[in-house]
Amino acid sequence: MNGETVVQHKPRRGRPPKVEREFTDIRKALIRSGLEVITETGYLSAGIDAVIKNIAVPKGSFYHCFKSKQEFGTAVLNAYGAFFAHKLDSFLLNDQLTPLQRIEAFVRHAGQGMAKYDFRRGCLVGNLLQETPLLPETFPDQLKTILEEWETRVSHCLMAAKQCGELPSTADTGELARIFWSGWEGAVMRAKLFRSVEPLNQYWAFFRHSITTK
Amino acid sequence: MNGETVVQHKPRRGRPPKVEREFTDIRKALIRSGLEVITETGYLSAGIDAVIKNIAVPKGSFYHCFKSKQEFGTAVLNAYGAFFAHKLDSFLLNDQLTPLQRIEAFVRHAGQGMAKYDFRRGCLVGNLLQETPLLPETFPDQLKTILEEWETRVSHCLMAAKQCGELPSTADTGELARIFWSGWEGAVMRAKLFRSVEPLNQYWAFFRHSITTK
Repeated sequence: MNGETVVQHKPRRGRPPKVEREFTDIRKALIRSGLEVITETGYLSAGIDAVIKNIAVPKGSFYHCFKSKQEFGTAVLNAYGAFFAHKLDSFLLNDQLTPLQRIEAFVRHAGQGMAKYDFRRGCLVGNLLQETPLLPETFPDQLKTILEEWETRVSHCLMAAKQCGELPSTADTGELARIFWSGWEGAVMRAKLFRSVEPLNQYWAFFRHSITTK
Repeated sequence: MNGETVVQHKPRRGRPPKVEREFTDIRKALIRSGLEVITETGYLSAGIDAVIKNIAVPKGSFYHCFKSKQEFGTAVLNAYGAFFAHKLDSFLLNDQLTPLQRIEAFVRHAGQGMAKYDFRRGCLVGNLLQETPLLPETFPDQLKTILEEWETRVSHCLMAAKQCGELPSTADTGELARIFWSGWEGAVMRAKLFRSVEPLNQYWAFFRHSITTK
């Protein structure tokens, strides 16, 4: 605690004052812009100038919201993890489809997303995995936590697939979920190179066939 | 041909003159250093300063050997492709082992290589795949050519596996070779994050089990 006294403020009632709202709005806009830039360029090449250019705020505003590029990267990575977990839920908890159909729907959606941005944007987490050895030292643990959250979701979906007989009862769903994401990140890179959804679809077809063969 | 006359010089006999030897030696040393730097940092973040620092030559020498970072990157990528194809041959053409044992031996060797450099170095091609959208426009075709060369080698090995009964006779070896490399690049990234050979070994165990199950 560094000997400092931590004062707990009671939450204020009503609308926050204008300055605070502006701060929050700019912070959110910077994170949104950061999501785009880092998904395209990775963290190491991402320039603050590119981030603020998208939303036309002065550079001073950036450093008012974030002490450093590292603090900004942490916030963007958290935002991406949460955004993606929410997206996964929207597919993997959809009980209108069978569990394996849900994963397939996610795969198709991800392909459409990549095509929409002309295969310039892949997976922000994948970009950072590639850069791991050069990233600030707090990032790897953050990446592991995010991957675990995604793995848990896929693992639960695979458990549901077991229960309804889509998967053999012997399947190790935790292990398969880890392998799913490992291969997925490779397929996303390949989709970028070939500017095509084929690598994603081929990967899923192989994975699905592999796990359903008894 | 731009209207230029192309003069074919006869190869000179004997040792090349000293200046030419020095040029060739520096060029080779720069490429070797570039292989290390780009395998660690990717292309976009790779600084010429870092490349020349490793071998202590003045910056002028770099630009004497290469017109630009792009020309250098092209040479390094070619060198990596050739180096890796040669390495693959040393494993996949080893007839002391069965075809699938040869691929497994390559996987173990790759893991040892990553561990040796404390998981800071992964696959140079993987780094560039991730960076594809931002690379000079000649790089994607070069990357595709290199991947095809690797795929052909794995495909031939899988054909041999079919012939000796390690794989079902129905296996589409070309398709499986593409999937092998797609998943491999994902596993290498994961090995970097977890600083462990486990992701490589798990990936291979899954792939091997999948392709051998009839």
